[in-house]
Amino acid sequence: MTLDLHDDVVSLTRALCDIPSVSGDEATIADAVEASLRKLGHLEVLRDGDAVVARTSLGRDKRIVLAGHLDTVPIKDNLPTWFSGEGDAQLLHGRGTCDMKAGLATQLKIAATLPEPRHDLTFVFYDNEEVASVKNGLGRLVRNHPEWLSGDFAILGEPSNSGIEGGCQGTMRVRITLAGKAAHTARAWRGVNAIHAAADVLAILNRYEPRRPVVDGLEYHEGLNAVNIQGGVAGNVVPDSCIIDINHRFAPDRSVDEAYAYLQEVFAGYELEIRDKAPGARPGLDQAAAAEFLAVVGREPVAKFGWTDVARFAELGIPAVNYAPGDPLLAHTDEEFVPVAEIRECERVLSSWLR
Amino acid sequence: MTLDLHDDVVSLTRALCDIPSVSGDEATIADAVEASLRKLGHLEVLRDGDAVVARTSLGRDKRIVLAGHLDTVPIKDNLPTWFSGEGDAQLLHGRGTCDMKAGLATQLKIAATLPEPRHDLTFVFYDNEEVASVKNGLGRLVRNHPEWLSGDFAILGEPSNSGIEGGCQGTMRVRITLAGKAAHTARAWRGVNAIHAAADVLAILNRYEPRRPVVDGLEYHEGLNAVNIQGGVAGNVVPDSCIIDINHRFAPDRSVDEAYAYLQEVFAGYELEIRDKAPGARPGLDQAAAAEFLAVVGREPVAKFGWTDVARFAELGIPAVNYAPGDPLLAHTDEEFVPVAEIRECERVLSSWLR
Repeated sequence: MTLDLHDDVVSLTRALCDIPSVSGDEATIADAVEASLRKLGHLEVLRDGDAVVARTSLGRDKRIVLAGHLDTVPIKDNLPTWFSGEGDAQLLHGRGTCDMKAGLATQLKIAATLPEPRHDLTFVFYDNEEVASVKNGLGRLVRNHPEWLSGDFAILGEPSNSGIEGGCQGTMRVRITLAGKAAHTARAWRGVNAIHAAADVLAILNRYEPRRPVVDGLEYHEGLNAVNIQGGVAGNVVPDSCIIDINHRFAPDRSVDEAYAYLQEVFAGYELEIRDKAPGARPGLDQAAAAEFLAVVGREPVAKFGWTDVARFAELGIPAVNYAPGDPLLAHTDEEFVPVAEIRECERVLSSWLR
Repeated sequence: MTLDLHDDVVSLTRALCDIPSVSGDEATIADAVEASLRKLGHLEVLRDGDAVVARTSLGRDKRIVLAGHLDTVPIKDNLPTWFSGEGDAQLLHGRGTCDMKAGLATQLKIAATLPEPRHDLTFVFYDNEEVASVKNGLGRLVRNHPEWLSGDFAILGEPSNSGIEGGCQGTMRVRITLAGKAAHTARAWRGVNAIHAAADVLAILNRYEPRRPVVDGLEYHEGLNAVNIQGGVAGNVVPDSCIIDINHRFAPDRSVDEAYAYLQEVFAGYELEIRDKAPGARPGLDQAAAAEFLAVVGREPVAKFGWTDVARFAELGIPAVNYAPGDPLLAHTDEEFVPVAEIRECERVLSSWLR
């Protein structure tokens, strides 16, 4: 399997999509990407498992990281890719077109066509983003080779409608366990119904007003949602326990600890058990390199609400944004597609900025 | 295995308990009961599976049914039976002592010692009361031989602290299914959280004020309890569905249909799916035979809150009460016991009434 990185960026997108690479099965595409990068000659190429890293060493003041995952969610009769429409309205359909091989194609095209970019560049293509976090290839690189990832600003090729989606929100899951006292329902007054006690917690959730803070110029939109409720012993028993799992999405102006303190205030009087947590990432658009990039993109940046791997860069102290063709709401749908014009636009933007 | 029905009623209780008869394994005890009843000579004895029916045919104006189940819940290292205490405080411990072989013993003693009772008597000893309703031996008799069960008033030997626990409450389980709209929790405003919608239903349950109607002179105490709640798709998804199962216990002045109409009023605007229902039974203490019995018992009758097989008699048009030694709250506990003095008291009461 070979890839011609000098090919037209839309053809390159198609070629990448037509190499199936469902999570766990990225060896073929990683081999093809590695071989084609090595052929270029002007990049140092490194490999860890099915992650491929390539970089310039031109001694520039700044280093920009361009990163994207090689894997896709499972194929659902939506490969090989196909086109619909024509001209400016042409769309490329199929698994991976939106999430996120069009983004990969724009980055690989830059790798091939800018041997002497104005900033040093590090390209990071990795495996297992669409599965459990512990398998994430970027996480593995952070653990095994953090020095491969050093840089001043990172662009993650997650679909963002060709605009900048800055940073990402943090996420935290807490559990509230309500206790009651079991009794036969025929003599319910001898017990205390733990499910009924959930009314107050749910009322708090219904009263919740999300913050919409502006961070580094971008407006975020927080959220607080019960994602699981379970209670009940038997059809004739007053239940003595009810659990509610709550997911809080918080803007990157708050740390995990601050978000937890906020939840303790919201649910005053309840014990909160943290089940899961991940910090957000500030968009970092106040950085010089980012401002430069912003100017070239020429679209109003927006906040990224979902959690993405930009947070892994943030943990390394590298501000990061999502930038690539395609609508993030189409990611993981069987109908995913990418507008051809957006692929070309993103390539043009990256190229003007970095040439 | 033989039983001497002329033996002391406490010894007879012990002998019955020491024949293990966990639901589904009642053949030995049913054989022993049948054989000992046949030996008496003055009763017609009938059998269906492990249910034994025996009756006088003296042409009396009234017929009283004395009924009890032969089975127990599983044995938990609590057989053979043992005594504690002495004199009036003596207790008989072990599986079945309370629920309900002491009651059986008092009824069998009457069968043996009153060959010419003042009312015609029908004794009904049956299997599988402690398991799924479809297996219930009394239910099977109702289906197979309703004529064996005819009578004017029935006494069910469920433990009632040697007082009359009249009738029983009805029970109904309904399900409310709340619908929402799924969305990623990072963009929760695109969805509708079905778990949050449960707040209103639970608030209704918290506001509920139970009726305590007086029916045929006895005060009942209704109940309305969530017994199960389930909702949630995944930790990052706004849930689109939440189900709540609610158990209503209703006094026997309401039919199943009336209870359902009441729930429709309480949960106006919600669709209620009936999952399970069973009518209550009026205590029927206004009947002549019942009034006579009441006078002999000499204790204030109370309402039976739990559902018992008296409702099966009610469905045949036979008023029925629970009457036997033992505390119903000890039923099914591993520590169940029966006060010896109560066994003797119940035998005395039944005997004075029916001789």
